[in-house]
Amino acid sequence: MKKITIGAISGFPEFSPEEQILFNWAKNIIASSFEKVGAVPIETAAVERLDVLLSKGGNNKEIYAITRAMAEGDEAKKELGLHFDLTIPLARYTIENYSELIFPFKRYQIQPVWRGERSQAGRYRQFYQCDIDVIGVNSLSLLYDAEMPYVIYEIFTKMNIGDFKININNRKILSGFFTDMELNDDAIKQVTGIIDEYLSFNSSKTLVDTEAALLETGIDMEQTNQIIGFFELAEGLDNEEVLAYLRSRSTEGSLARLGIDELQTVYEGMVSMGVNKKNVKINLKIVRGLNYYTGTIYETRLEANPGLGSICSGGRYDNLTQYFSDRVLPGVGISIGLTRLIPDLIRTGVLKVGKQTVADVLIANFDHSKSIEYVKIAAVLREAGINTEVFLEDKKIGKQIEYANKKGFRLVLFKGPDEDLNGTIKIKNMDTGDQQVIADTDLVGTVSALLQHQLQYS
Amino acid sequence: MKKITIGAISGFPEFSPEEQILFNWAKNIIASSFEKVGAVPIETAAVERLDVLLSKGGNNKEIYAITRAMAEGDEAKKELGLHFDLTIPLARYTIENYSELIFPFKRYQIQPVWRGERSQAGRYRQFYQCDIDVIGVNSLSLLYDAEMPYVIYEIFTKMNIGDFKININNRKILSGFFTDMELNDDAIKQVTGIIDEYLSFNSSKTLVDTEAALLETGIDMEQTNQIIGFFELAEGLDNEEVLAYLRSRSTEGSLARLGIDELQTVYEGMVSMGVNKKNVKINLKIVRGLNYYTGTIYETRLEANPGLGSICSGGRYDNLTQYFSDRVLPGVGISIGLTRLIPDLIRTGVLKVGKQTVADVLIANFDHSKSIEYVKIAAVLREAGINTEVFLEDKKIGKQIEYANKKGFRLVLFKGPDEDLNGTIKIKNMDTGDQQVIADTDLVGTVSALLQHQLQYS
Repeated sequence: MKKITIGAISGFPEFSPEEQILFNWAKNIIASSFEKVGAVPIETAAVERLDVLLSKGGNNKEIYAITRAMAEGDEAKKELGLHFDLTIPLARYTIENYSELIFPFKRYQIQPVWRGERSQAGRYRQFYQCDIDVIGVNSLSLLYDAEMPYVIYEIFTKMNIGDFKININNRKILSGFFTDMELNDDAIKQVTGIIDEYLSFNSSKTLVDTEAALLETGIDMEQTNQIIGFFELAEGLDNEEVLAYLRSRSTEGSLARLGIDELQTVYEGMVSMGVNKKNVKINLKIVRGLNYYTGTIYETRLEANPGLGSICSGGRYDNLTQYFSDRVLPGVGISIGLTRLIPDLIRTGVLKVGKQTVADVLIANFDHSKSIEYVKIAAVLREAGINTEVFLEDKKIGKQIEYANKKGFRLVLFKGPDEDLNGTIKIKNMDTGDQQVIADTDLVGTVSALLQHQLQYS
Repeated sequence: MKKITIGAISGFPEFSPEEQILFNWAKNIIASSFEKVGAVPIETAAVERLDVLLSKGGNNKEIYAITRAMAEGDEAKKELGLHFDLTIPLARYTIENYSELIFPFKRYQIQPVWRGERSQAGRYRQFYQCDIDVIGVNSLSLLYDAEMPYVIYEIFTKMNIGDFKININNRKILSGFFTDMELNDDAIKQVTGIIDEYLSFNSSKTLVDTEAALLETGIDMEQTNQIIGFFELAEGLDNEEVLAYLRSRSTEGSLARLGIDELQTVYEGMVSMGVNKKNVKINLKIVRGLNYYTGTIYETRLEANPGLGSICSGGRYDNLTQYFSDRVLPGVGISIGLTRLIPDLIRTGVLKVGKQTVADVLIANFDHSKSIEYVKIAAVLREAGINTEVFLEDKKIGKQIEYANKKGFRLVLFKGPDEDLNGTIKIKNMDTGDQQVIADTDLVGTVSALLQHQLQYS
């Protein structure tokens, strides 16, 4: 038979089983942290109408259209596409199910999204997004903005990925500051872009570069100095000092002051929820995309690896569903791009790829004709909730030990002729190399204890 | 602003949050049952090359092709498509990663698949498949075939969906029987189709109908009677009796006898693994698709709702990767179509849609200006591992109770002026209506006990 030559398609990453085990571990931490604050799960269809996907005025070069492979003529018209984020689907779902949903609607979604990118190194065309959002009707308490950093804190603390910093800011502060300077919308947009590119993390640009870039937008030297001064004066201050600094520079009733008040409420809220202050930085230089977010914004960086960029971002928006409805549904949310994050954390040594098994116990196949005896041992362990694999192939014991080592089983159990005669089982501890022989009746107790014991030190 | 009219796209089902909670519960039971026998998780990309998808000679009317929405000319050529099952992706993945994988390769995959069906009632264009397969190199122990019913048994027992029957058969028995009758391949295909349609579950056809249909294929009356007799004589026999009956009708060394030996090994294996005999039926009338499966085959039916069809099916195949490689990789696997199963089980009353919250505890917002106090209470509970939601909006207590009732919280906690003064918290048990006032310091203990206590009776 003629064989089809297969191979990976660029941009569609796939994991090895041991990477997938790590990925799922992280995904479960994220889901359980979302659920800790009571977010309910939903999943939307992978497919949306193209006009819905383009409602925000997105870039349709990034969209994958789907049509039936055989379709021709009218039927081949592109009308449906794969979602490229989970925000538009959330908006569409919320309006479609408005009367059945209970508000504030706090939901999470962990699903792949697709981007019809041209093929290039490092660009993913399919990746998981893990999103949590809270949607209110007409208004939404600022303390929901504080819950997002709590969730971020919970996730990355549980993932134990080292020092991380949740950077928070409020877009009203920036807007207010620039409006007070009488910059017009276009100038604000340009200036904000420069701050993002020149002043933010990991930028190789100097203040001189920044000055030059700002002047090029058409603002004058005084304004340029004012802008640079505003950001630089906040450097090195702790969170409380930044808030005081901002307060001293703003006037009662101004947009900036409103932003400062909001930022303070959110900051105090997250600390009350248990977020460690040392993991939070009020950072005026984070700006996010200008059009969507209107209040609180978040970025999360690893201290040891700022080059990874923001590993969890989000913010507050005025109206989720403005393209679909006259309702006003403000919300706040964050997102983690997990398919990129996990390989990044592996590559930088933050996470280690571990074993290739989800079971800790392997039962060796001493004599293939007695396999039924081995599955009975497995039955006892499984009944006690212990994931157990039985080697069922007719292979030499050496090969089986090799299999156990490669996959990373912690215990290998043997029932050879001696053990059969004596009503015992031999247990080999793969970490220590120790062997012990136990009575059949002690099986569950001994195995549980061994697994427990090792866990404390692993 | 002009609004875009949105709406569901036919064939792409979406769940309400409470249905999704139920779906995820079932998905977790399936995953943990797969892991109980040591299957490792993988996920393949949603997208495959069209020639790979069509390798088995599939129906490309069922395939959704993807192209960039903006693509024109050469770039618009259909070369990629969404996978329509998880078997071809598994075959491609196994060959692509052959040198890194450890065999026997026991893996599970829980992912959506897509079918480019024309729109019609009840047809899903996107649905989850939950697959487990074990792949060997050149050979694979029959006891892996016994592990599949163990997994099925584990899943549906945990899901507590009432009496179910795992129907097993072996294709070699059918092939051997028909070959002994000297039917040719074409006749075997036709006859097998008739058995599937006329004799299987839920068929309204009589034996007279079956006889007529068989005669129409061109076989004679004697052969027709022989076939009907073969299947009908096995009716009403228990599993051991069917095996004895088959053995008495087969000859040493025949293909049928080989199938009978295999079936017996698999049957005894699953019983040793802990499968209750009453949940297994050796059923000669299940045949599955003729071309793919070559040995053991499975179908699972609900006794009370046979009309739902098979809720978990699969079987043994000779070579997973024949279209991609010269290697011979036999395997055995099963699949559950969860997106259809959950609504089916809800509709038939087998599963009940429950609450719309993943948190059991809601902290009421007695005085909005004191919200910070409420999030501090939540922090204590969350730290103890208890999912907790805080009502953060400024709404009347009546509205908050309504919210708690609608979503199904079990406990609502109040910190009003009295409680504030006395260092206490009021707990309202939403199931019983009981209220109690406890000291702040007893919070975690009391809430844990209340949640524990109620669980025993829920």
